[in-house]
Amino acid sequence: MIRVGILNVTGYAGAELARLLYSHPEAQLVSISGRSAAGKALAEVFPHLASYDLTIGEELGEVDFAFSALPHAASAAACAPLVRAGIPVVDISADFRLRDPAEYADWYGADHPAPELLSQAVYGLTELNREAVRQSKLIANPGCFPEGALLALAPAVKAGIIGPEIIVDSKSGISGAGRGLDLKYHFGEADESVSAYGLSGHRHLPEIVQELAAMWPKAEAPVAVEKTVRVWPSEAGASGGPPRVTFTPHLIPMTRGILSTCYAPLTAALSDGAVQELYRDFYAEEPFVRVVDSPPATKQTRGNNMCLVYPTVDARTERLVVVSVLDNLVKGAAGQAIQNMNAMLGFAETTGLDAPAVYP
Amino acid sequence: MIRVGILNVTGYAGAELARLLYSHPEAQLVSISGRSAAGKALAEVFPHLASYDLTIGEELGEVDFAFSALPHAASAAACAPLVRAGIPVVDISADFRLRDPAEYADWYGADHPAPELLSQAVYGLTELNREAVRQSKLIANPGCFPEGALLALAPAVKAGIIGPEIIVDSKSGISGAGRGLDLKYHFGEADESVSAYGLSGHRHLPEIVQELAAMWPKAEAPVAVEKTVRVWPSEAGASGGPPRVTFTPHLIPMTRGILSTCYAPLTAALSDGAVQELYRDFYAEEPFVRVVDSPPATKQTRGNNMCLVYPTVDARTERLVVVSVLDNLVKGAAGQAIQNMNAMLGFAETTGLDAPAVYP
Amino acid sequence: MIRVGILNVTGYAGAELARLLYSHPEAQLVSISGRSAAGKALAEVFPHLASYDLTIGEELGEVDFAFSALPHAASAAACAPLVRAGIPVVDISADFRLRDPAEYADWYGADHPAPELLSQAVYGLTELNREAVRQSKLIANPGCFPEGALLALAPAVKAGIIGPEIIVDSKSGISGAGRGLDLKYHFGEADESVSAYGLSGHRHLPEIVQELAAMWPKAEAPVAVEKTVRVWPSEAGASGGPPRVTFTPHLIPMTRGILSTCYAPLTAALSDGAVQELYRDFYAEEPFVRVVDSPPATKQTRGNNMCLVYPTVDARTERLVVVSVLDNLVKGAAGQAIQNMNAMLGFAETTGLDAPAVYP
Amino acid sequence: MIRVGILNVTGYAGAELARLLYSHPEAQLVSISGRSAAGKALAEVFPHLASYDLTIGEELGEVDFAFSALPHAASAAACAPLVRAGIPVVDISADFRLRDPAEYADWYGADHPAPELLSQAVYGLTELNREAVRQSKLIANPGCFPEGALLALAPAVKAGIIGPEIIVDSKSGISGAGRGLDLKYHFGEADESVSAYGLSGHRHLPEIVQELAAMWPKAEAPVAVEKTVRVWPSEAGASGGPPRVTFTPHLIPMTRGILSTCYAPLTAALSDGAVQELYRDFYAEEPFVRVVDSPPATKQTRGNNMCLVYPTVDARTERLVVVSVLDNLVKGAAGQAIQNMNAMLGFAETTGLDAPAVYP
Repeated sequence: MIRVGILNVTGYAGAELARLLYSHPEAQLVSISGRSAAGKALAEVFPHLASYDLTIGEELGEVDFAFSALPHAASAAACAPLVRAGIPVVDISADFRLRDPAEYADWYGADHPAPELLSQAVYGLTELNREAVRQSKLIANPGCFPEGALLALAPAVKAGIIGPEIIVDSKSGISGAGRGLDLKYHFGEADESVSAYGLSGHRHLPEIVQELAAMWPKAEAPVAVEKTVRVWPSEAGASGGPPRVTFTPHLIPMTRGILSTCYAPLTAALSDGAVQELYRDFYAEEPFVRVVDSPPATKQTRGNNMCLVYPTVDARTERLVVVSVLDNLVKGAAGQAIQNMNAMLGFAETTGLDAPAVYP
Repeated sequence: MIRVGILNVTGYAGAELARLLYSHPEAQLVSISGRSAAGKALAEVFPHLASYDLTIGEELGEVDFAFSALPHAASAAACAPLVRAGIPVVDISADFRLRDPAEYADWYGADHPAPELLSQAVYGLTELNREAVRQSKLIANPGCFPEGALLALAPAVKAGIIGPEIIVDSKSGISGAGRGLDLKYHFGEADESVSAYGLSGHRHLPEIVQELAAMWPKAEAPVAVEKTVRVWPSEAGASGGPPRVTFTPHLIPMTRGILSTCYAPLTAALSDGAVQELYRDFYAEEPFVRVVDSPPATKQTRGNNMCLVYPTVDARTERLVVVSVLDNLVKGAAGQAIQNMNAMLGFAETTGLDAPAVYP
Repeated sequence: MIRVGILNVTGYAGAELARLLYSHPEAQLVSISGRSAAGKALAEVFPHLASYDLTIGEELGEVDFAFSALPHAASAAACAPLVRAGIPVVDISADFRLRDPAEYADWYGADHPAPELLSQAVYGLTELNREAVRQSKLIANPGCFPEGALLALAPAVKAGIIGPEIIVDSKSGISGAGRGLDLKYHFGEADESVSAYGLSGHRHLPEIVQELAAMWPKAEAPVAVEKTVRVWPSEAGASGGPPRVTFTPHLIPMTRGILSTCYAPLTAALSDGAVQELYRDFYAEEPFVRVVDSPPATKQTRGNNMCLVYPTVDARTERLVVVSVLDNLVKGAAGQAIQNMNAMLGFAETTGLDAPAVYP
Repeated sequence: MIRVGILNVTGYAGAELARLLYSHPEAQLVSISGRSAAGKALAEVFPHLASYDLTIGEELGEVDFAFSALPHAASAAACAPLVRAGIPVVDISADFRLRDPAEYADWYGADHPAPELLSQAVYGLTELNREAVRQSKLIANPGCFPEGALLALAPAVKAGIIGPEIIVDSKSGISGAGRGLDLKYHFGEADESVSAYGLSGHRHLPEIVQELAAMWPKAEAPVAVEKTVRVWPSEAGASGGPPRVTFTPHLIPMTRGILSTCYAPLTAALSDGAVQELYRDFYAEEPFVRVVDSPPATKQTRGNNMCLVYPTVDARTERLVVVSVLDNLVKGAAGQAIQNMNAMLGFAETTGLDAPAVYP
């Protein structure tokens, strides 16, 4: 049994890691940290985890594998000594996602806490990056929004069937904002209401752009996206890259789930059927991505590690429209992290992750 | 007092008309019809309307003004004799929205029931069409989605600052689907879930296209949008018209409210401030549209006739992004209908419609 | 026009007063206070109140009538000078509800801030206390739970048809807990979940007991309910008083509404029909209480000042079961307060309060 | 591997059985029926069950063990041949719960379809009836409401610390009403609303009464509860039996979960601590019932087989108040059914059922 630790178990992502690991046959959660609740039993903070007999510590004890669910900056600082000690780590924070430390500084407002580790870090979207994940000891787990957007767009981008004018319109359950208190997430404010946010630039945007650019066919060298200045050359033709992405997240009155609706111009006239086939081929071997033939609902993935993808063609405008759904805390965070652990340790990726969604 | 009637009071739009008319100082609801519930007291079908002492009839009695909340086709058939008798009518159904009967047939799957009345009908988005509404006896009340999309886009279109590649991504509460039973709207299915629908072509699309095309600067003659064939000439340049719209509605787990996020390329580099000013000028005199300076929430319009509009510029991609919110049953249906009645009858448009939203 | 002020407009009750007063034809809101937001425009704090052109002050300006939506203790302190200056006040806080200052100290953990005013204060459940309300300059507006429980039980108590063994099981929307931040009201915690609270003694219990005891037929002198000691004499017979009440509130995943289910033993075999008739007679002249003949839903009162009451007999156990529903922010707070103002100032009680509920 | 079948997989209980069985290491779902969807793939009807490669049939194929999720009457008819063939069956319907066929006829409006099997049937509340369950081949799985009420009350009843005047006030998520369409469960009607139902007699009442009476200390022979006539002798003393229960279920705007608040007079002055200890002792060895020391939330059991029980004393009135929470589709239906299967087949009861709840 692999001895596993979770840095900062007290947020929703940390608790979800603990929930999912409980059913993992090859890994055992043995150590958990969380400063605000140090000294408390896990069962006291999270009654749904009462099956565990674990106490939250200030620091992790001895482990073979670590997950970090710390906030950004704190996470890199805490992961660095583990990585140096040779312990494989999956970092759920944003710290190792952006490859360029200047871009990190731009978006996160501070210098990167461990820039020397960036070259070792692998972006852990397992489906698109499997071999690198398997070789790595430091995984940057994708953001919940990039997860859904990239799985929705990757087959089209790699096949070269779309142009770079991309819109990603995402709808997220409120657990995505975490467990911290804020009037926006107060029940009376969030219930029965929808709103957009991050319109001046959400931190998941550069992550989406970086990964799309990296997979773009014959892309020019990716250009840094700065926070306030438009940098994509306007001379880029309709079918050339790199991608020019507008990303708008929305807050939806539900607890879990993200639906992303992605729009891009088709570079060739393609039928619905042709696009469906291309997507099905692309994901044919993937256990956690299913291409579906009718529009999916987030509820169909509640609590499990699936991402459902529905590509369709708007023939009137020659646009590709792709809808993806996933559970932001599972495929968008803790489940993806465990999938990465499985890949890193040589387990089947589905190990401990194959429970059906909790519908209805 | 104007004597008012409602055709088909038994759906959500009909009931909302009755609710709002209760507070109208110049109009009195005197007659209501609804076949499925004919003979029942209104209070029996809708306990929240118990202040009314009205019985639902098979047909309307004598009225000075009529609203139709009947389904399409049935509505035109029922409105026609009223119009011929000189009674002013606001039709909440889709029957008189599309000016071209061929397009109607295309989208609604049947010949138009009263094509001879189409030339008299005025598209009742009062803010954009005020003079025509005032002169008309037959108003086609806008669809709930077009209402939010058109109010969001009109200032930009009329100012010529956007190109025709438009995305409208809308999020609607479930009352928009009406009161009819369907597994999709069953609580266990719709709660805690988001899904997209209408991806192959929602009936509100041709309405959005028709109205955008009509206001498009120097637009070519609008071309019929057929249901399965792309008709916008691909040679249309990036800044030329007519508009090429993709519209995707989504079902959100809340009862009331629509948020529409609209995307279009800017034809000139404009700052956030400049766009905000353009929008504020455009709507400066409008009592029911407010341009806001932070992203609005649908809850801020729950139960009242306001539409809040938030325009912003995505400087990285030179796109305009406009978010609008409204209550689908009020500004998206019954409130807009009463606003139209007020304009037709020479009342101040705010008469009976100025109650604040019911927040939280 | 009566010039009205609201002390502490920044909570849900204060904002709801402002919302409802907007439609009041005889009163005009002219002054609002709220320390945390002093200096801000009301529209900035509450976008749904943008029709008002008012700035939040540290203190109230000159007014003819004041509502206090301050927290307990602060409220009595702020109301006292107004009362002494002869300005009529409705206090939405709990400060003037309990007639016995010792009991206040017991439940609120501090001495009463203005005990000398207690004798002037009238418990403002208008339906049960109309004449006293009309004569008073200081009204203690009922708590939201007592409002529903007392309206449900009063007809039976006054008719002497129930014994004193009473259970009040209430289900409340989360706005009842106010706008303050707390993990319990965080969307992720409160959504899709039900819980009980206040099991060791909720502050609305002594209020319910005090008022039931006061209306109990030939009741012994009411005995103080202390927080930790059982004081009702166990020798009290099944049909004698005073009432022995267990009250359990529950948190429900919705924003507005309270449903109270009240249980008491019948002292005589009565049919459903007889009890319904007794209730209908009792409330025959009341504009804001309607006795209904099927179980009501909170949604039927959303946003308006109605309380729906459904009495029924559990013939198997000879118990009376009464269900009442209301909107906790309207009939349970701001609407009841305006109803009291109307009574105090000689307006019809329905003035400004007759809008139908916002269903669905 | 045990080959398992599900009669009527197309409702929520049937689908939940399939979901839970997917993770069962000793049982394999091999056959499913459901007339309305016969011939369809399970994945087509329930996308969350796409991991199964099963087709819904008209009838079950060959199985070693069967669950019935059919409606009452149909269920007994379909179970009877299986029982006669020696196949062990857990029936989730109500058909074998009431021991007296006359009472069945009274509450279900028809003669019992298989009265000759009633004597073999065991009421499958495993915690209270373990030995009989182990010996039986025909289990009547408890109703969702009785499950929570009986687990809440059993320790007190068996210890003889409460009198018979019992109130059970239950709050249920809407999935409890099943997947059938009805205006009451339409999202627009059920969302943001609470209502009571079954006030004239819910079918789970006789089940609660039967089981409480059976465990009542020195109870007289249980008297049949008829639907319209009060039968409990009024001469029953305060501390004597049999129980006189009022049961009121409420519809709550959430999908899953039941919270039951149970009230009964204490027959002796007991402290909170003493009652807690009594409950903890009673359930000390139970894996699926946990006595908690603060009021639980339904969310803490979402998706798993736990029942959390919180007993407390209302010292002012000498009443016991017990709150229990569970997931109506798991511990209230499919999970309890699998727990019974495990007990019947000699597996550890937790087999396949130990996943933590899906919080938040």
